[in-house]
Amino acid sequence: MTQFADPKTLSKAELESGGIFAPKFDTNGLVTAVTIEAGTNEVLMVAHMNAEAIAETLRSGHATYWSRSRGKLWKKGETSGELQELVELRTDCDQDALVVVVNQTGHGAACHTGRKSCFYRRVEMTDGEIKLAGTGDAPLFDPEDVYGR
Amino acid sequence: MTQFADPKTLSKAELESGGIFAPKFDTNGLVTAVTIEAGTNEVLMVAHMNAEAIAETLRSGHATYWSRSRGKLWKKGETSGELQELVELRTDCDQDALVVVVNQTGHGAACHTGRKSCFYRRVEMTDGEIKLAGTGDAPLFDPEDVYGR
Repeated sequence: MTQFADPKTLSKAELESGGIFAPKFDTNGLVTAVTIEAGTNEVLMVAHMNAEAIAETLRSGHATYWSRSRGKLWKKGETSGELQELVELRTDCDQDALVVVVNQTGHGAACHTGRKSCFYRRVEMTDGEIKLAGTGDAPLFDPEDVYGR
Repeated sequence: MTQFADPKTLSKAELESGGIFAPKFDTNGLVTAVTIEAGTNEVLMVAHMNAEAIAETLRSGHATYWSRSRGKLWKKGETSGELQELVELRTDCDQDALVVVVNQTGHGAACHTGRKSCFYRRVEMTDGEIKLAGTGDAPLFDPEDVYGR
């Protein structure tokens, strides 16, 4: 089992300015992982990682998350072929979130709907009413062909 | 009090492809908000929003979060002057995360450490050892001058 430093044992200065990686996991043992495309910085998806997923991502060079719905380690693309090659992993000031910089392989679709990004809808307020509108990000493949659903 | 549609009342197709905004709040009533800079797409910070913060962000045109540490609504920049002008708000496929596209005003520092981005450290694995290294993102102001700490 992968062990990282416990953030509670670090001072605020050590946590925020130091070289010790001490991810601040939530009560479920997870940190938020924001995955962006290398080069464009486009946000592809938001997922979660536990200690094992972080270590596996660094070891394998492929983004690996913790699937909350399936309750297991999730190598992104293991079913769809949409693997994510790790370019860089970053952490934030208080070490409770990660940015995963990747090259999106396969069709170039990080989203299970077949789109490049999961963030394909805008939230708009018109005359006090809030609605969603598409950003124009169209599916690159048919999810039924890839996932059989 | 701001009310949005309950995602549990929507089908998967409605939730993922429809025009109804139905944010899937966690047990604390929060969704993850990833704030990026308009134009560059650079990830500035990761925070949280409750229903009121989302509505206030859309109404006011300035990014407003829920501060988990202070337990109250947090208009980003109200103390530091580092206000974030809303350019676009996006939601993801299952509506449990938001991307907040902003113009970062003030010194241009989203991070309380005075840096542009909270993600100023890389996680690196060398010979099996995991350490943090700076990305070169230097402070744009002295936090003591701005926050008095």
